[in-house]
Parts: sequence; C-alpha cells; structure tokens
Amino acid sequence: MSADMPRPRRDLGRATAVRARRDVAAWDAEADVIVVGFGGAGACAALEADAAGAEVLVLERASGGGGTTALSTGQIYLGGGTPIQKACGFDDSPEEMCKYLLAACGPGADEAKIRLYAAESVAHFAWLAAHGVPFKPSYYGEGSYTPTDDCLSYSGSELAWPYRELAKPAPRGHTVQQDGIEAGGRLMRALVAAVAATPVRVECDTLVETLVVDDGRRVVGVVAKVDGAERCYGARRGVILAAGGFINNKAMVERYAPLLRKCRFRAASDGDDGRGIRMGMGAGGDAIRMDVGCIVLPFTVPKGLLRGIFVNRRGQRFVAEDLYQTVVGERALLGENGEVFLILDDATFERPFPPTELAAVEDTIADLERALDCPTGSLQHTVAYYNEHAARGEDPLFHKAADHLVPLVKPPFAALDYRPEAALYTVFTLGGLHTTVDGEVVTADGEIVPGLYAAGRTTSGLAAQGYSSGLSIADATFFGRRAGRAAAARR
Amino acid sequence: MSADMPRPRRDLGRATAVRARRDVAAWDAEADVIVVGFGGAGACAALEADAAGAEVLVLERASGGGGTTALSTGQIYLGGGTPIQKACGFDDSPEEMCKYLLAACGPGADEAKIRLYAAESVAHFAWLAAHGVPFKPSYYGEGSYTPTDDCLSYSGSELAWPYRELAKPAPRGHTVQQDGIEAGGRLMRALVAAVAATPVRVECDTLVETLVVDDGRRVVGVVAKVDGAERCYGARRGVILAAGGFINNKAMVERYAPLLRKCRFRAASDGDDGRGIRMGMGAGGDAIRMDVGCIVLPFTVPKGLLRGIFVNRRGQRFVAEDLYQTVVGERALLGENGEVFLILDDATFERPFPPTELAAVEDTIADLERALDCPTGSLQHTVAYYNEHAARGEDPLFHKAADHLVPLVKPPFAALDYRPEAALYTVFTLGGLHTTVDGEVVTADGEIVPGLYAAGRTTSGLAAQGYSSGLSIADATFFGRRAGRAAAARR
Repeated sequence: MSADMPRPRRDLGRATAVRARRDVAAWDAEADVIVVGFGGAGACAALEADAAGAEVLVLERASGGGGTTALSTGQIYLGGGTPIQKACGFDDSPEEMCKYLLAACGPGADEAKIRLYAAESVAHFAWLAAHGVPFKPSYYGEGSYTPTDDCLSYSGSELAWPYRELAKPAPRGHTVQQDGIEAGGRLMRALVAAVAATPVRVECDTLVETLVVDDGRRVVGVVAKVDGAERCYGARRGVILAAGGFINNKAMVERYAPLLRKCRFRAASDGDDGRGIRMGMGAGGDAIRMDVGCIVLPFTVPKGLLRGIFVNRRGQRFVAEDLYQTVVGERALLGENGEVFLILDDATFERPFPPTELAAVEDTIADLERALDCPTGSLQHTVAYYNEHAARGEDPLFHKAADHLVPLVKPPFAALDYRPEAALYTVFTLGGLHTTVDGEVVTADGEIVPGLYAAGRTTSGLAAQGYSSGLSIADATFFGRRAGRAAAARR
Repeated sequence: MSADMPRPRRDLGRATAVRARRDVAAWDAEADVIVVGFGGAGACAALEADAAGAEVLVLERASGGGGTTALSTGQIYLGGGTPIQKACGFDDSPEEMCKYLLAACGPGADEAKIRLYAAESVAHFAWLAAHGVPFKPSYYGEGSYTPTDDCLSYSGSELAWPYRELAKPAPRGHTVQQDGIEAGGRLMRALVAAVAATPVRVECDTLVETLVVDDGRRVVGVVAKVDGAERCYGARRGVILAAGGFINNKAMVERYAPLLRKCRFRAASDGDDGRGIRMGMGAGGDAIRMDVGCIVLPFTVPKGLLRGIFVNRRGQRFVAEDLYQTVVGERALLGENGEVFLILDDATFERPFPPTELAAVEDTIADLERALDCPTGSLQHTVAYYNEHAARGEDPLFHKAADHLVPLVKPPFAALDYRPEAALYTVFTLGGLHTTVDGEVVTADGEIVPGLYAAGRTTSGLAAQGYSSGLSIADATFFGRRAGRAAAARR
C-alpha cells in the first residue's frame, strides 16, 4: 500500500460501493418507488409517482423537506406563453424559448431535454400552480431575483447580443410569490404541503448511503443510516436519486471542477455533498460535464451599473456587461482568472448590492490605470474607444444594448473590485448523472441502469455552459416529475 | 421506454458492464498481471511487472504493439539534470522542474504525481536508456518536435512569462533519436524489443471488452474477443488498463468535453475509444477532469512567426505568443471560440508549417482591420500599441520575450487564419481514471478498487490544464512502470 494512497475524507462519505441484494437479509420497509432527497426534485418526483398509482417513500437526510430549492430565490425558468407572460403583455412561444435555450445553454447542452422542456413549459406552469405554488401576475424587470412579491423577470441573456437576434426576447424567470429574495422557501412549503395531502410516506433524518443491486445490476433498494443504525429499504419499481449537487464536497470539486474553488459562496444546502451522484456512479451511472458550474457574479443591482465597463488586468474589455451575470461570471472567473474591475464615472457610480470593494477612485483614467496596475495607456485607450462609440449609442466591440451605453467622462472615476477575494462570486455545480428525458440513469456505454432514476442537480440538466436563472428549479421540478412517472410505470 | 432513450453507438462499444467471477466457468489463460494495451504505458508496465517477478500477459487489440505512443513525436518530458541536459550545457534540478510543472500544469494538477516525477525523472531517463531507447546528446531548440535526430528542446512554456520568473528555465523535451517528426515509432520499437527479450507473453488481435470482478468487487480478470469468440483471462494479482484516451469516441467527447469537437485532427490511434476508461468506470473507478484536452495550435514553425501577434475578432490581443502552442491553443479555442488570426508584416511573414490559410493581405492595418471584420479602430490601436512598446523591447500587455518583439510596420500586412476551419488544431484527451501514484484506480469516494491499475492516457495524469509536450509519454512510461511494479507486488 502506497503512502500516497488517497483515503476517504470525512466530508466525503462513502457512497459508490453498492450492496448486493443477497447481502440484505430482509427489507425494513418497502415501496414501489423510493425517492432519495426531499427538495424540489424529490417532491415533484414523489407527487407524480403517487399520481401514477405507485406506493412512494421519500427518504430525506435533513429533519424536513426543502433541500437547496428552499434556499434559492424561487425563480423558475418557464415560458412559451405562460398565463403570467400573457397577463403582463409579453408574447412568447415554445419555438422562441427553444431557440434561446439552444443558443444560450451550450456548447454541450442536452438538446432533447431543451426541446421537450420548451414544448411543455406552459403545461408545467399549470401543474405547479395546481399544486399550490403561487405566482402573482406581475412584471418586475430584469434580474436573477425579485425582492418584491412580483413574478416575471428577464433572468438570462435574452436581451443581450447575440441572443436578442437569435430568438425573440421574452422574460421567462417566474418567481414564486413572496416578499424578499428567498422565495424558494415558499415554493418548497407549497410542494411539501402537496405531498402531505397524498399517501406518500416521508422519512426524515434518514441518510441514504448505499444502493442495493441484484445480480443483474438492477437497482432494487437502498441502505440508509437512521439514528446510527442501518435500515434497508426495498424498491419494487425504482429508486430516484434527487439528492442535489456536489459543491459542498471539496474533494469532488478539486477533482472534477478545480476552477470553481475560487468562488467564495456556495449556493447550496449542506446536503450537496455529491452523495447522490456518487451512489449513481457506483451503480454504473455516468457522471457528465462535471467541470461545469453556475458562477454568479452579482453586479447588476442597481441596474445602472450596467453602464459601467468591465476590464481585465490588461485594461481590456472582455465581455458585454449586459450578458446575464452568470455568463459574465463564467468569463470573468474562467477566462480572466477573476482579475476584473468595473469602471464607472461619477455620473454612473452607485453603491452596488451586494457590496464589493472599491479598488480605486481617481480623478483621471490615467491615474486609475496606474492605481489598477494596468499597462500604461491600455485603460485610457479602452475608455476613450468605448466613450467615442457610446456617444453614438454603439458598442462595436461587444454590442451592449444601447440603453446601457453612456460615455464615462465625469470625474472622479471608480473601479469596483470584482475579483474573487472582494466580490461575492457564488457557485453551484451543474454536472451530474447522465439521464434520459425520463430520468433514467445512463452508463458510459449509453445503456440504462435498470431501476435507477435521477433528477435535479444530481443530474446534468438543461444547461451545460451559459446558465440562465431558473433553469435548476426547472430541471428539478420538470424532470423530477418525469422521473417519478417513469419509475412508477416500470415493472 | 422513451423514444429519446440513448442507445449504444456502434463506435462506442460496451465496456462498463462487469462480469461476475461466478459467471466465468473457467479461465482460458491465467497470469499474475494482465496488461490491457501494448502502447507506451502497457509496455513499461509489463517490463516492470516482469522485473518484479510476476508472470505477465499483455493483451492488445491491434495486430502489434505501438498504440498512440508509436504515432507520436516521441518526445518525453524529462529533466532535473539528465545526462542529455548536462551534455548540452543546461543546468537543471528536480526542484526547478517541479516548480515549473506545478505552475504550468494547473489548476487541478496532481501535485503528488508532479513531485514524484520531478524527483525521479533522471532515474527514469536512465531506465529508458537501459531498455534500448536511443537519445542523442544534442540540443535542437524550441518546439514540440524535432525534425532532425536531435534530442533536446524547449517543449513547454519554460521561457515565457510568468514561468521564466517562477522557475529557472531548462529544455526538458527529450526526443528519441530518429530523423523525422515521428520518433514515437522508434521509441515503441525499442520498448517492444525489450519486452520480447523477457518471458512476458503478448497476445495481439485481442480486444478486451469486460472486466471480471468477484463478490468483493475485486478485479480478477478480463473477458476479450478473439476471432469473434470470447476468451476469459484470470489475473492473480491485478489488471492494468493501459488502453489510451477517448478522443476517437464521438459520444464520449460530446458528453464530457464538447468544446474539443472543433479540433480537426485527433492525435490518437483508432484504439483511443475510451474503452479502458469505461471499463474502469464500470468497476467503480472514478474518471476525473474529463473535460480537459491537449489542444495543439501549430503555428511556431518557422520560429520567426512568434514575432507576429495573435488577435481575436475584436482586434484585441489575448495571449502571449511565446507561451507554448498548446497553451495558445487552449486560449484560442476555449477563450476566443477559435476566432483568431496571426498578424504579420512583410518583414516578419514566412510560410507557416503546417500550412494555414491567409485570411487577408492588405497594404494598411486599417484595411486589414476591415478585411477581418474587426471593429473600426480596434486592430489599428492594437498594432500601434504593440509597435510602440516593441520598439523598446517591451510587451506590457503580455510580456512576450524580447527576442520575439519587433514592430510590425512594413507593408503589406498579413493575417494568417488560425480558426479551426483553416488551421490544423490537433487534440487528444487528458482526462481519465483517477489513480494513485502507484497506478491504483480510485473510486469517487477515494477508495482503491482492489486489483485494478491504470496508466497513460487511460488516466488523468501530470497535467490538468496547461500542457507541455512530452508529458503524455512521461505519464505513460513512468507511471506505467509504477503500475506494473505495484500490480506485481500485490497478493
């Protein structure tokens, strides 16, 4: 044995080793469908499996339902002509929604999932509403969250170039009705209540650690830890892994997505330790696009900050500032190693929310350039070139929308510090188990793992690169429902 | 069953399903150590397992040994003070080699592998030489290959900023002695001959498809296809997967590394279909950094082309042109979506090898800017700024070394087209099974898969991002040797 042999880390836990059916003496409990995790994906999977006539058991590691969905902004990417879009006077169609998602979510996006989701998004909205999820027919504006109880907002890059030319823009972020920015809690209260109104059994404080497989490599149950003791649960039709992503597992982030380590904040509950993904891998499931994260660079509040320009350490612009903040975050962190600053003048400066540091304030751009340690002349040229064209309402380099174009001429000039040490880069993982549109887990050979399903951030979903807000709860709720139906239908 | 259910592709093959030991009636043959694949990694693993006293059987799908190593330039990254470095008057140490690799191979590089390799590189050179691999004590210059029979060259970013400040530069690319750029064939002839001089058995035309595991999930053999019939091979101590990468498997590239699809040329033999990686995954092994590829943008021959400047579609420079061509390739393809051009004037222009298209030739930079559809003024500024500083031997934006700095002032001006449609972007995969420094395959939980070893491009090796030429044959030969020793020592 080598001294360098890696050992399981305390924070990692063991999950990939499967238990053979013949090593399970008897089931402590049985159900047709076992759902692992009671966040958005697990709740929707349970509701649909129940509706399809299956006996359903939900096992949740925490003391109650919620998961990461409950901690989220409660924004769901929905469109194609929802009642909210119509009430607010926005024209949308499944075709335009599909065009946008295909352009914005790649390369490497799952085309089958995108096409299906765009086609059925209006019906999915109706299902959510019918299950008690409240939406107010009101338009908020742009942004990844609504601090008010309003619903609709632009939550992606729909209005930014080139997307505004590739698909007719429409706001598709649908935030659940609740004051404050954590409407995800309201969403989960609704879904948990909907589950409570069914015969679905829920067992909390139950940490599923191991899948049980029979000699044919079919998944037939799970082993969980309850009050320190092991309990075995048999699943007659299928097991659905809805156990979140892996951003809270340092070892996994280091292995699969080391570039994400720089983000200071992880948008995830403690349960996002990759256990669901690892259990799926242990049963033969393939984990794909494990390098990809949603990197949020929050700089768009107040919205007037979009009139600033982002520059790198070389004083160059590198991105259209009106691309969605997750796209700007990706380019800043991955492309520029996080060495970026937002340049504003006295007329455009506002205090950002969330706050970040001021890297420098100077009376001239030349002084600002020196203060930021940019090469002499570089920032001066960038600002002069930008100003010259902004005065004409043009941005030949990046095509930022004309609304946000104004010359930066009034001293003093400021550089807001959007380096990872200063700004609140927020991240969660987008990679996970490879699934069909029905949530079936697929091997690296492209074959189904019998009896195993997954949904939500335990899977790779709609987006590969190029995130728009609301896509993760879309993945969780829509594909969670499909996994529930598929598992219930399996004999 | 969904209409969207993925099916195995013909080019993919099946590999993840394991065979239970109890389902193997009898072994057709047995050995202590079975090596899957007879390229550089497999040959070195076999030699060392044999030297350690094990009975060794090598199974190769092709009709003879060679693999991708035989198709390579035969360059091995070696240093720390090899006899060749000393003969050519270059001072190097394991410490400087280690500093360079740690800085250049990340983020996400395997520090344990780098430290060990730097410490033992001189001894590894001696082992290769003792096994008949010829090296001529001569210095060639810079570049990923030597068209002559010379040995030593700078094959990474050692001379480029910031690496030249982080570690004392030394040339570490050691090319096996042979005229022409495919010295990998010479390397493999030597290793195959060395194997032939041992009792190691080699069976060719034998496609290993499946691992055999016992009830304890230990790997105890393989199943192969020979002349259309199945043959089962028992491995008393271990199986070593040395079966190459996955760049020739379209489905895998699409799933794990969709950005690599744009490269026109794949530096790989037909066997690089990911079968070894998938077999390892099926036995519980973890595949990591599957998104990463070595992207070669060949633009450095003749070397004078380094005096040009790379610009993107916005007329901006984006990279130091003297970074190694794989680093430039990564930045061009991943950061700029491949929309890049090399700008030269009449004094610096030379015909590139390999050839690429001329995107435009114009009498002024303003005309070139128009011809390339860059924003008005953008390229003019870039060239003016570059020229002003190059005249003083400075490159404040990217710190290109002074040797390559000369103002681009003599018309006509040319833009060489280094977009993926025009230029010979060449790629192979760097992601693969997670292994210890002893080649033991590790699960997603960080535990060893008993009896399973891997080496070469079937594994994730020394480099994550930031490739330097010669690191893959270093991975194959050095860690192949260690896997062979570890498997032979296992009881």
